[in-house]
Amino acid sequence: MPETPSASAQPPHRRRSASSRRAILDASLDLCADQGYGPVTVEAIAARAGVSKKTIYRWWPSKGAVVLEALDDAANPAADFPDSGDLLEDLVVQMEGLVRGLFSDRRFGPALVGLIADTQHDPMLARGLVDDLFGPRVEDARRRLVKARDVGQISQDADPNLVIELLYAPLYYRLLLHQGDLHDTTELRVLIEHVMRAVAPKT
Amino acid sequence: MPETPSASAQPPHRRRSASSRRAILDASLDLCADQGYGPVTVEAIAARAGVSKKTIYRWWPSKGAVVLEALDDAANPAADFPDSGDLLEDLVVQMEGLVRGLFSDRRFGPALVGLIADTQHDPMLARGLVDDLFGPRVEDARRRLVKARDVGQISQDADPNLVIELLYAPLYYRLLLHQGDLHDTTELRVLIEHVMRAVAPKT
Repeated sequence: MPETPSASAQPPHRRRSASSRRAILDASLDLCADQGYGPVTVEAIAARAGVSKKTIYRWWPSKGAVVLEALDDAANPAADFPDSGDLLEDLVVQMEGLVRGLFSDRRFGPALVGLIADTQHDPMLARGLVDDLFGPRVEDARRRLVKARDVGQISQDADPNLVIELLYAPLYYRLLLHQGDLHDTTELRVLIEHVMRAVAPKT
Repeated sequence: MPETPSASAQPPHRRRSASSRRAILDASLDLCADQGYGPVTVEAIAARAGVSKKTIYRWWPSKGAVVLEALDDAANPAADFPDSGDLLEDLVVQMEGLVRGLFSDRRFGPALVGLIADTQHDPMLARGLVDDLFGPRVEDARRRLVKARDVGQISQDADPNLVIELLYAPLYYRLLLHQGDLHDTTELRVLIEHVMRAVAPKT
């Protein structure tokens, strides 16, 4: 592999792009937090980030695509998947991080909800949501569950995809269908314990 | 209670209202099926139903409110809750009816998805979704689960609200987050069996 030049050795053009990218992503989240996702425009993002509309459209096809990338950056620490060897405790930590760090965060929650709404009318954005935002995280969860299955913490018959639906769908159900407060730690633990019981190893 | 006059004895004004109501609700669903929810306007619904915009706004505050009432009518046969005494079989029938008769119906599915998206920007519509469309059906499900708990088919500790989330949230997860095809009968049965295992009576 060729040597990667250090940031300061990059041509000015590349450096400007990286800082503009950050400014644009931040501006999109700030605006979603202030106004909700709906009223935010590419024009407003450009103005707040101090770039031209043209700059944004050179890199992203729509406001939704900007917000998607901003959330993808944000989700990395929030949705990280621990592996302590204890599946139940790892799920509590991960799901709590997701609810606290993303869903109920003032800066990320409304942006995520608005983005998901937008994907209902925009098939390209829906593809981005599935492939870029959800895909890698669902894959992390699946890997953790397969490992737990391999060491006999859950049943050999357990279908990781079904387990993922049972665990995570209730969070989106409350978030998107206005079904009350998001899960607190106690509720998350009860939810996870129920799902673990559903796929407990046969004795 | 005073006698209710028969439909034909009602003044012409009331009769016209009922048929206009039906025409307006049908027009809103037809348009959602043709174009998707997003582009549909109150103007287009009025034109298709052969009424004035003013007539629609006299009865409903927004296009979303029209679609909500149309779906509420449609959901009655589709989401009815049977009570054969066998909880698992009743859930299979009810959830299959919901997926087949509503979610994957060409006339109702896109309208429902678009409506849910719209509730993310419209708090009054969100309230309507929760109180009018979901509320009574969640209550039906809760009643059926409490009865099953009373006769010992599920654990005395089982929380009906959690069971409802475990059962129904996965349907909305696939529908709203583009996570593949909706559940077929086999998948529904597997899902329900897992949830029943999670709340099985202690032996």
